[in-house]
Amino acid sequence: MNRRVWAPFAQNVALVTSGERIEMHAEGDGWWAAKINEPLSRTDYAFSLDGGDPLPDPRSPSQPDGPFGFSRPVDHARFNWTDAEWRPPPFGSAAIYECHVGTFSESGTFDGAIEHLGHVKDLGITHLELMPVAEFEGERGWGYDGVDLWAPHHAYGGPDGLKRLVDACHAAGLGVILDVVYNHLGPSGNFLQRYGPYHTDRYKTPWGDAINLDDALADEVRRFLCDNAVMWLRDYHFDALRLDAVHAIFDSSATHFLEQLASEVHALAEQVGRPLAVIAECDLNQPRLVIAPEAGGYGLDAQWSDDFHHAIHALMTGERSGYYEDFGSLADVAKALAQVYVYDGNRSRFRRRAHGRPVHGLTGERFVVCIQNHDQVGNRAMGERLGHLISREGLKIAAALLITSACVPLVFQGEEWAASSPFQYFVDYRDLKLAAAVRDGRRREFAHFFDDPEQVPDPQAPQTFMRSKLNWDEREHEPHREIFDWYRSLIAVRHRTPDLCDPRLEHTSVEFDEASHWLSIRRGKTLILCNFADLSRQLPMPDDASTLEIVMTSSPGVRIGERHILMPPSSVAILSKSQ
Amino acid sequence: MNRRVWAPFAQNVALVTSGERIEMHAEGDGWWAAKINEPLSRTDYAFSLDGGDPLPDPRSPSQPDGPFGFSRPVDHARFNWTDAEWRPPPFGSAAIYECHVGTFSESGTFDGAIEHLGHVKDLGITHLELMPVAEFEGERGWGYDGVDLWAPHHAYGGPDGLKRLVDACHAAGLGVILDVVYNHLGPSGNFLQRYGPYHTDRYKTPWGDAINLDDALADEVRRFLCDNAVMWLRDYHFDALRLDAVHAIFDSSATHFLEQLASEVHALAEQVGRPLAVIAECDLNQPRLVIAPEAGGYGLDAQWSDDFHHAIHALMTGERSGYYEDFGSLADVAKALAQVYVYDGNRSRFRRRAHGRPVHGLTGERFVVCIQNHDQVGNRAMGERLGHLISREGLKIAAALLITSACVPLVFQGEEWAASSPFQYFVDYRDLKLAAAVRDGRRREFAHFFDDPEQVPDPQAPQTFMRSKLNWDEREHEPHREIFDWYRSLIAVRHRTPDLCDPRLEHTSVEFDEASHWLSIRRGKTLILCNFADLSRQLPMPDDASTLEIVMTSSPGVRIGERHILMPPSSVAILSKSQ
Repeated sequence: MNRRVWAPFAQNVALVTSGERIEMHAEGDGWWAAKINEPLSRTDYAFSLDGGDPLPDPRSPSQPDGPFGFSRPVDHARFNWTDAEWRPPPFGSAAIYECHVGTFSESGTFDGAIEHLGHVKDLGITHLELMPVAEFEGERGWGYDGVDLWAPHHAYGGPDGLKRLVDACHAAGLGVILDVVYNHLGPSGNFLQRYGPYHTDRYKTPWGDAINLDDALADEVRRFLCDNAVMWLRDYHFDALRLDAVHAIFDSSATHFLEQLASEVHALAEQVGRPLAVIAECDLNQPRLVIAPEAGGYGLDAQWSDDFHHAIHALMTGERSGYYEDFGSLADVAKALAQVYVYDGNRSRFRRRAHGRPVHGLTGERFVVCIQNHDQVGNRAMGERLGHLISREGLKIAAALLITSACVPLVFQGEEWAASSPFQYFVDYRDLKLAAAVRDGRRREFAHFFDDPEQVPDPQAPQTFMRSKLNWDEREHEPHREIFDWYRSLIAVRHRTPDLCDPRLEHTSVEFDEASHWLSIRRGKTLILCNFADLSRQLPMPDDASTLEIVMTSSPGVRIGERHILMPPSSVAILSKSQ
Repeated sequence: MNRRVWAPFAQNVALVTSGERIEMHAEGDGWWAAKINEPLSRTDYAFSLDGGDPLPDPRSPSQPDGPFGFSRPVDHARFNWTDAEWRPPPFGSAAIYECHVGTFSESGTFDGAIEHLGHVKDLGITHLELMPVAEFEGERGWGYDGVDLWAPHHAYGGPDGLKRLVDACHAAGLGVILDVVYNHLGPSGNFLQRYGPYHTDRYKTPWGDAINLDDALADEVRRFLCDNAVMWLRDYHFDALRLDAVHAIFDSSATHFLEQLASEVHALAEQVGRPLAVIAECDLNQPRLVIAPEAGGYGLDAQWSDDFHHAIHALMTGERSGYYEDFGSLADVAKALAQVYVYDGNRSRFRRRAHGRPVHGLTGERFVVCIQNHDQVGNRAMGERLGHLISREGLKIAAALLITSACVPLVFQGEEWAASSPFQYFVDYRDLKLAAAVRDGRRREFAHFFDDPEQVPDPQAPQTFMRSKLNWDEREHEPHREIFDWYRSLIAVRHRTPDLCDPRLEHTSVEFDEASHWLSIRRGKTLILCNFADLSRQLPMPDDASTLEIVMTSSPGVRIGERHILMPPSSVAILSKSQ
């Protein structure tokens, strides 16, 4: 067999192992190859460009010693998969659970996660979403600074561990989504720029130079990323990918990279005979991402929409700093529920410009929404969850808004029991200058919230990571048990109520009273009534309902009267009506 | 009335005239206003930001003393238009004439251009296209370094002169297109960045920072440009705009600036009751620009496609340097004729990546093509026209390919008589360092073509400009007269032959023989046969034609035989067939 690598600027390339150095031959188009025998095909290796230090393979399938170590070959044919019959639940009726492998379980590994799949399944979740697992520097991190995009992180358990987790998910009836980062590479251990023009200075991202998708030799960079996507779905049996921050992916080509990626993934789905989805995180409020290519879109399956989160968070916490200045009213929440984007062409104060475009003609299953996720929790100075900021009753209302949404709900690990642990920002760089820069940058960012900047946790400190681990024991105790039951019941109601699974936005209508602080959602024959006030409120009875039945309520005090429904302070109720 | 200006970062702004200084008041959203009386409304003025030097109005309608002078008010209501009944010819049957005001006539003014409209009309042209006229520094220049985007250049004759030219065009039955530059501003005399965030460093253009269309306060920058477009069409009665190099316009907003611009122009067309078009120059081979918004496009009316030019130029000149390395075969010409883009997703050697996307479902009237234009001629070291590079017979073949195209043909001033004058690059900067930098940059660019770099004309030298002026006397003499007659006959045939005006690309098919060097185009019942070889060629007879008639030919030697058509060396013929 051949070991191959793309290094278009190199004059010579050698394959390096601990004992050998084999000159590779140019194959054309910047590719280099070396014939290797069977033992060598199982030996750790690296590449030396123009006589330089050995560097890991850009497509390394495993980095057992981290990004600065040798690459380890992986034979994907050798794993004993048990999921031959697997077909994922339809995405339209999905309930997603976002999980960070390192803090999800005590061991912080793929195998550790397997132990908690019963809990996830019990909650009613259909898809487990893993935060990025591609090799990043250190033993702990969020994963968005990955540098070996093909290698499952060594500290999580590497390739075999990841396969065991996906296989176990499928055995439990759970689809699995992988978060992949195609907008930048991490600051430490990234050797891609040594190999070729993976980056471009034509565009800027918040994390430095953008990935080169439209300049010279970009075809091979696009191949690198598309092949990577295909690899996770084919070799690790993932059901979907979540693309991180695609608003930082710049491409002026006639065919946008995202369209190419979605098209290749969907072609793979045809080939493997099971649905495969591509979901994008995007802050552009740009419907084009999920519009079909025939209609001029990129054809992605779904996208995250942050407005839903921001509207509910700002309303319930009263926070107005940063991007929350754009939100806070019930009108915002109502618009998010009925039209997905609160900003669909109107002016954003925070952005100081018009933002977004309406989602005309699209259904809710094209949008993933949440009231908490790793970013919204973890990008706070102290990593507070929503449950740390508002009352238990408020949390129940927010959860009901999420789970009864026409969009696809996503729950962040521990949210379902109002976990006491925060989710803080943590890294583990061996370059202490970089670690200090990250710490100081973060302290500067949050300086106006604290008298003493040292109160902001140091991302490099091991305790910051440990503090963010879930405490599984607490969920058996109140108040956590009560919140868990609430989430579980909500999700069960969603699954068994066709109105709630109906993704058609035109079947969702919202009424509200900004002054009296209540909001009422009609989804077909199902009503969700929310009283955000600290006082009881009488909500109007829908005029076409002869009978109303309580499906679920956060308070025993909900009363259905002749012309009104009495809602106790801070309460939510799901009702069904017959005509 | 009020004099207003947008200066969002200023603490105070004053309106300055030669005698007065009036403090302006903040109106909100960064706008400042001052009440002015009637005499003041007719007085030259400037603005002083935070006590600084007087600067011209960003929306100055006239800069009689150039970009560094005061702004002069213009009352658009005062011009006596005579074109109330004007309706432009339909764009689908257009033949465009690109004109540089400064070199088109002896006087180099708008009024000078009027003198030659009879010639343009006689040629069969439907639309005159003016290279940019917005105020740039100096007395001579191409105009792509404009800095006062609302002010017709003082040396051309200012606002009234431009109105006289447009009015005269309409009186002659000619539509008028204006070239506008919205991708960057010139290097000298640009004060916009002093007023506000008109620029962004998020994206790079070949000419520096891009225009800010999607960052903070971009709404007002977009208003500035859209209002500018509307101003030319409404106040100067232009029929269309040609947007320079839109591939250097970067916008990640959910609604692309180009879509907004097209939509505002089309709304104006409804309002004024005559068609208005937006045409983009773009090198992305991106059909989205001219796809309807309902189908996910930007809704522009047409775009330039350079592949047509490059394919024909490379074939006929044998040149293969720069972007011509991507072209040269008859197959390229055939693809350009039948499918518009030669690069529609295939790999470009020059760009070192895949390029473009097919134009499926679009018609030829969405694409403007040429065999010469200001860039293709002027961006050569010596500014040679195609007629300076190839034989007269070759030029006739190229002209026939252009004028019989399914796309909209554009002729560059003087092309129609194979003008002897070059079109060289010229500037007139008062900053001699800048002038020297431009000269040296250009000499470096072309260094490999010349032993002595001084052979490359100095853009700043007045002779470079003078040399580029058309010599109108020569067109009465051979060989110019012959070429002019050829162009005029071709355009007349195009106008009276429905097959040739038919923009449907599926009604165009092309056969060719790369080795024998002939090409045959079928457009409905009309055939265009080209023999590029220096030898006679027998071209196959179309099998469904019982009778063939010669409509036009460049050589008396064309013979229609039983099974072949004999084409003399370097010849072209237009035939019509009946079945």
